[in-house]
Amino acid sequence: MPDSLADFQKARADLNDESLGCGHLGIKRFFALDHQAYEPGPLGSKTKELLGLVASAVLRCDDCITYHLVRAAEDGWSRDEVIDALNVALVVGGSITIPHVRRAFGRMREIDGLKPISAAEK
Amino acid sequence: MPDSLADFQKARADLNDESLGCGHLGIKRFFALDHQAYEPGPLGSKTKELLGLVASAVLRCDDCITYHLVRAAEDGWSRDEVIDALNVALVVGGSITIPHVRRAFGRMREIDGLKPISAAEK
Amino acid sequence: MPDSLADFQKARADLNDESLGCGHLGIKRFFALDHQAYEPGPLGSKTKELLGLVASAVLRCDDCITYHLVRAAEDGWSRDEVIDALNVALVVGGSITIPHVRRAFGRMREIDGLKPISAAEK
Amino acid sequence: MPDSLADFQKARADLNDESLGCGHLGIKRFFALDHQAYEPGPLGSKTKELLGLVASAVLRCDDCITYHLVRAAEDGWSRDEVIDALNVALVVGGSITIPHVRRAFGRMREIDGLKPISAAEK
Amino acid sequence: MPDSLADFQKARADLNDESLGCGHLGIKRFFALDHQAYEPGPLGSKTKELLGLVASAVLRCDDCITYHLVRAAEDGWSRDEVIDALNVALVVGGSITIPHVRRAFGRMREIDGLKPISAAEK
Amino acid sequence: MPDSLADFQKARADLNDESLGCGHLGIKRFFALDHQAYEPGPLGSKTKELLGLVASAVLRCDDCITYHLVRAAEDGWSRDEVIDALNVALVVGGSITIPHVRRAFGRMREIDGLKPISAAEK
Repeated sequence: MPDSLADFQKARADLNDESLGCGHLGIKRFFALDHQAYEPGPLGSKTKELLGLVASAVLRCDDCITYHLVRAAEDGWSRDEVIDALNVALVVGGSITIPHVRRAFGRMREIDGLKPISAAEK
Repeated sequence: MPDSLADFQKARADLNDESLGCGHLGIKRFFALDHQAYEPGPLGSKTKELLGLVASAVLRCDDCITYHLVRAAEDGWSRDEVIDALNVALVVGGSITIPHVRRAFGRMREIDGLKPISAAEK
Repeated sequence: MPDSLADFQKARADLNDESLGCGHLGIKRFFALDHQAYEPGPLGSKTKELLGLVASAVLRCDDCITYHLVRAAEDGWSRDEVIDALNVALVVGGSITIPHVRRAFGRMREIDGLKPISAAEK
Repeated sequence: MPDSLADFQKARADLNDESLGCGHLGIKRFFALDHQAYEPGPLGSKTKELLGLVASAVLRCDDCITYHLVRAAEDGWSRDEVIDALNVALVVGGSITIPHVRRAFGRMREIDGLKPISAAEK
Repeated sequence: MPDSLADFQKARADLNDESLGCGHLGIKRFFALDHQAYEPGPLGSKTKELLGLVASAVLRCDDCITYHLVRAAEDGWSRDEVIDALNVALVVGGSITIPHVRRAFGRMREIDGLKPISAAEK
Repeated sequence: MPDSLADFQKARADLNDESLGCGHLGIKRFFALDHQAYEPGPLGSKTKELLGLVASAVLRCDDCITYHLVRAAEDGWSRDEVIDALNVALVVGGSITIPHVRRAFGRMREIDGLKPISAAEK
């Protein structure tokens, strides 16, 4: 886990700005469509964030997992619920996902609402 | 879509029996663990089936999608909710998932509760 | 290769209609964005079709390969050029792509402009 | 499992001939390199066939699995050993590989040396 | 983006030397075949580099993207053309490729010919 | 290669403890099943470690490759045998696996029994 959550978010915002500001309409639209996919519809945003987390985990994308962990906490999912979702990803995706699940546990140490009890008590 | 849902389920049951009856304890345990991942825990079964569906769609496994569509309908997810989940998978997984999303629409024609209105009225 | 190109295209069009007509705006927009990605921009459509073909081949999606082979022929790419692109995909994607490259050769037998000489002479 | 092993092998040989005979030197060399990877070296061919089988299973390529099952049987691997290798693939690759493991069990019914006892006795 | 382009290229060259010098003929031949795939044939090298870039992006390999960005600039592709190719990769590969597209934008800051206008003016 | 093998193993052990200690029975069972897959059965542990290495390489997981390289050396596989297995992975998985194979060569410099001759002599 080379970067802190704050460093990750700063680098992400910087490069997102550059990606969105590059002048390519297709990329701009894709980012918008990605954002809209998690807005309330037949399913609520809270449910869809968990779908995004599991999709990110089985596709083994650490940055995507970090993003959805933060959003899941904001939407009110508890640590135990997030872990239960990660377990579905682990079984579907197999032991090749273990390093990503491991790093998800590391990331949760930095996210209010998802911290382990010992860390949360501090 | 070469097989009907009934044919798919028959072939699946036949080969599941053979896989489970092969005498390898690890395979038997894996199938059990896979089953348990969708049982009620911090998250309910209904939510977990939708996680399984989206994981199957982004990993582009038609058989897995069919299985989770059937289970999602049994758990009470509506056609519109399932489509909203497939949209998350489509955006996360990209246009390479389109053939699988397309076949998911074909499969839903055969599943009570997920049929399109015109087909459901028949 | 279970289906002829004509059967594939008919089934594809049927399920595309249902996918697009399902009433979900996100899915409709995604299909539009996918279409727009191949329209002329800084790169011409012809070049972008070849990019789509190679992306489909390394991601091992037979339906996507078939679609882009048809489009590549319409855009004027020759059999030898398409094969040269498939070779890039084969080297990048490895021998796991061989069954898909093999089926691409089978599909080219049905596509004017991409047929092998012996078949084209008939 | 739409095709018998014999049908699979006939279609595979037909399209392999066309792929190799297309006149592209890179494709020809790739097929040769793929063949050489399983020839005796620091590791014997028998061991390497099992590596090829597990690689094919975790990458979820049915045709590749069929090919390596046939070769594994020819090299003298027993049914129980092959199943033990498939179990490694199942755990590494997760439940998304189950349909492929299931079809591997179906395919083994057609391969001398890998048949289940009841089928082998016939 | 932990390493500068110069650091990446130095580490890459060091380990390439060791990989090629390990005495395994198959690995040596594979590296040669990979190199040859981008040499002029029915398609020119310039086109093939763009195919390699898109293949690398949909398969989500940062090192491969960096390598092909450098080569694409050397072959004369402009920033806008490269971005148009990355847009195809983004649509085909979905939002799971966004972190890699983002890092590609970061990498382009270091590559002459692909820098954003503000950076290029400095 | 940002971390030394010792740093990797320390971070891995730390997060493994947290993952296993999180109280989710499914995750605990999955880790156990993963461990058991490499224990002696119809195939010996030594063979199964090599299967795990190749599966890790074609699925392009650096942490998994590092883990299995260490285990392969402990089980007595020589450098040449490990390289021969990596060659199978390279051919099956294609040039997209090259960065991972390259890093495997870097990692072997730190593992007794897998070091290159010049390094081993030191």
